[in-house]
Amino acid sequence: MSKPCTSKLTAATMPSELENAMESLINVFHRYASDGNLNRRQLRELMESELSNFLKSQKDPAAVDKLMKDLDANGDGKVNFEEFVSLVVGLSIACEQCYQAHMKKSGKK
Amino acid sequence: MSKPCTSKLTAATMPSELENAMESLINVFHRYASDGNLNRRQLRELMESELSNFLKSQKDPAAVDKLMKDLDANGDGKVNFEEFVSLVVGLSIACEQCYQAHMKKSGKK
Repeated sequence: MSKPCTSKLTAATMPSELENAMESLINVFHRYASDGNLNRRQLRELMESELSNFLKSQKDPAAVDKLMKDLDANGDGKVNFEEFVSLVVGLSIACEQCYQAHMKKSGKK
Repeated sequence: MSKPCTSKLTAATMPSELENAMESLINVFHRYASDGNLNRRQLRELMESELSNFLKSQKDPAAVDKLMKDLDANGDGKVNFEEFVSLVVGLSIACEQCYQAHMKKSGKK
């Protein structure tokens, strides 16, 4: 699989940690998606493989179905990349708040 | 520096590619931020180190200043993690659209 967006980056310089992270978001999504979207089964596969710790923390067995409904902003029964990224953003912000709280508690920065 | 959010993940299983990407977003932000925010100078440092290819593509020498204004949603002269993530999301979505266009052109998926 060729990587059109990153080929220019690697030609110029080694990609940075942030560029690698952005590439990972795209790669992970397309590992599970078909035709640029995740259906319910593909979203479940992605969650089970890539966010298994988060999934385990959700006691509700219908967690993926509820997540699908929440993420599917345009109501077409599929999750596109923009909708997927909103999940990643939400989880990252929650985790960053936990990081900040820990740093305050331990008196760093 | 301890990693409160990821310590539980690594204790259970190796982090996934997506979990690593989320950790990178947090780590990169805090590498440049102080008190949980990026000021203008810190944003410039982050952009020059982590998004140098994007920055080079912006012909305008005031690109970072304009970006600061755009990102600083609450107008306090600082960029917090949520505001920073909105930049990463925008760039990722732009890059993913380029990826999709390339895939369509080359007849894959």
